[in-house]
Order: sequence, then C-alpha cells, then structure tokens
Amino acid sequence: MQAALVLMIVLSTLLGAFSQKPHHCKSPPYLQGKLLVDFSEGRSVVYEQFYYDALEQRIRVILAGKEGEHDVFLDRILLYREKVYYDIIYHNKSCIKNSLDGAFVPIAIPPEAKHRAQVVLGSLSGPAQGLLVNNWVGFDPELKANYSLTFTEFGCIPIVNMYRIEGTGHFLLSFFDIVVGIEDPTVFIPPEFCSSKTLVEQRDGKAANFFNALLYA
Amino acid sequence: MQAALVLMIVLSTLLGAFSQKPHHCKSPPYLQGKLLVDFSEGRSVVYEQFYYDALEQRIRVILAGKEGEHDVFLDRILLYREKVYYDIIYHNKSCIKNSLDGAFVPIAIPPEAKHRAQVVLGSLSGPAQGLLVNNWVGFDPELKANYSLTFTEFGCIPIVNMYRIEGTGHFLLSFFDIVVGIEDPTVFIPPEFCSSKTLVEQRDGKAANFFNALLYA
Repeated sequence: MQAALVLMIVLSTLLGAFSQKPHHCKSPPYLQGKLLVDFSEGRSVVYEQFYYDALEQRIRVILAGKEGEHDVFLDRILLYREKVYYDIIYHNKSCIKNSLDGAFVPIAIPPEAKHRAQVVLGSLSGPAQGLLVNNWVGFDPELKANYSLTFTEFGCIPIVNMYRIEGTGHFLLSFFDIVVGIEDPTVFIPPEFCSSKTLVEQRDGKAANFFNALLYA
Repeated sequence: MQAALVLMIVLSTLLGAFSQKPHHCKSPPYLQGKLLVDFSEGRSVVYEQFYYDALEQRIRVILAGKEGEHDVFLDRILLYREKVYYDIIYHNKSCIKNSLDGAFVPIAIPPEAKHRAQVVLGSLSGPAQGLLVNNWVGFDPELKANYSLTFTEFGCIPIVNMYRIEGTGHFLLSFFDIVVGIEDPTVFIPPEFCSSKTLVEQRDGKAANFFNALLYA
C-alpha cells in the first residue's frame, strides 16, 4: 500500500515536471490544408490547397482566385529532393520546369530551438474556445535566419512560422484547416503531359530556394 | 408522425442554414489575459496583464520586463468614459494623469462587418489540436480605419484584431490566455495615492486616442 502511494507521488511529480516543460514535439510528416505565405516586401499569397510530405521532401500548392480584376491561377509541385519544381498549365496541357536550390526546410522544431512561451490562443474559459500553443525561437546557421515557430501543444500542428533571413527579409508561413495525412498520395506526381514534349525548361535566371519558390511570381 | 418528420426536416434545414453562415457573435463584456499591441512603425508591446470592461469602457494594462539592458515597467488605467488615463508609479507612490481623446473601441464585431472566412487554426484531426475562428472585415468611418477582426466561433473570444488607420498606419491587437470575466473588479480603480497631492497632470501635448494610449511611450 505504502509502495503504491510512493509510486503515485513519484509518477505525479514526473508528470508534473513533463507538463511544466514543453518538449520538442515531432510534427506529422504528412499535412494538407491551406497556407498563407507573407514576404516582407508586402507580397503575400493564400494557397487554398497545400500538400506537404516531409519524408520525400515534396510540397504542392494550388492557388485559384482573383487579384483585382485579374483571374490568377497557380498549380506548383515542388520536389526539393530532385531540386526541381513544376508549374502546371492546364489550358494548353503544358508544364514549366524550374530549378530549386537550397535545402528543404521541414515544418518542425529544430533540436536546438529554445522554448520561449506557452500561451492559449483564445480562452480556456469554455470548450472549443482556446488552443494551447508553444512558441520556439532560434537561429538557423544554414538558412542564416532567425526563426519563431508556433506549434500546438497537442498534435504538434504548425500554426505560424516566421523566418527573418539576413539581408532578405521575413517569410511568414501561416497554416489553416490542417488535416494530418495526405488523402491522395498521387498529388505530388506531375501529370503525364509534364513529361511529354510540352515541357518547357526554364534555365535562365537564378534557381529558387525553399522560400521564394513558394511565392507566386 | 408525419408532422413530427416535417418538423424535424424544417428544424434541420434551419440549423443547417445557421451553421453555414456565422452570425455576428457578441463578445464577452469582461475579459482578462495578455495583450500584444503592434504598431506599424515597428513599435510593439506585450502586456502580461490586460483587463477589459466594455460596459464601463475601462482597460488596465501592466507591463513588467526588460528592453535590452533596461528594466521597463508600466501600469496604466485607461478610463475612456472619463477621458483620462493614469500611469501608476509605485516606487514614489505617485501617478501621472493624461487626457484621452476619441471614442472607446469595443472588442466586438460591428453590425456592418462582413464575414470573410471561417478557418481552423491548427487541425481538427485530433482533440485540442485546432480552433475554429471567423474573420470579419469592414471600414469604420469614425476611426477612418479598415479593420480585420478574428474571433473564435465558440465563445466569441478575440484572437487578433487589425486596424489600418488612414494616414497613421496599422494597429494589431493580439489576445492570449484570455479568461472570460474579471477576477478583481477593483482593478480599474486608481490607487488612493492617485487622488492625493502626488498626482501630476500632464496637460502638454496632444491627448492620446484609443490606440496610441495602449502604446508604451
């Protein structure tokens, strides 16, 4: 009986310690939802469809909307491991292939990130009124960027990730309507007409990096 | 039996219609929590304590932290109905009284605001991983400001409110760790020493408005 009591006290102390100090949680490797990309020069894009595969280092973003009077459309598959991205143009069944440079930046908390704050977005005064999140900060020497990353306490779902890149500006990635998993795994495979004669390779200009490849240009 | 079935169908249609179109929810009149104020000139303040009373039009903000090497402290009671605010200085038990100009801006969705989007911050893939919010936009002719207001679907708790004021810039108010209600109602009453001889009235300069009175100067 006494042993059980001691065990309970030890356990509750341990659990207390864990609950006090948020751990470097592991984000899901597959995500889909909506993504807002905001760049410091006042450029921002909302992708209604965003697909993310951390294991194969692939992203797909789809944008369909209006910019003032103009219809805008973008369907881009980014294959970071193959260092290319495709823009798919449906109306004439063609594709544009571009070079991708630099490493894939996973949506994850780097091991060296420092925990800055745990806060509730909204309120815990009633059910479904608040969301417990953790904010992590640090410096990425490879990207030469200070980062501020906010993930949910439960599920480790990204909320908003900010990168301040030396000499470039800030990139803000905001995530909405996130679903864990990928409904259709073929979403990262360029359509068949991309490998046919209609493929245009753009070799002029600088290769895009992780961030600016996500900006509609 | 058939009448009951018809009633059920009518009810479910009505409920469906209501659930599809978010209503102009009513925010709680009493709130306390944390507040981040961000102004376009790069000035931002995080108040660890924020108290809000919509009925009597009173706000109190308390800031205690470090700014680089300096300790910073601010304890400000804003009485919009009386058009004054007090800065409380504890070390010599004195107060500074300032003028407040312009109307109180309630943390609420104006009746003429347009619903722009309903999104989940995070994910609904698991419990406590997401927060359903609504975004409302519009123009306030009195403030001469475009606004973008985000409130939770349940509880109508403020998340982030942005005002773009013509010729001034943007004010961003972000709310964290919000509790519905006020624990201590005396929090809006200036301490006794504020009404004694130690009170300094600042009559020089322009009276602060709703927004810049919330900026630590």
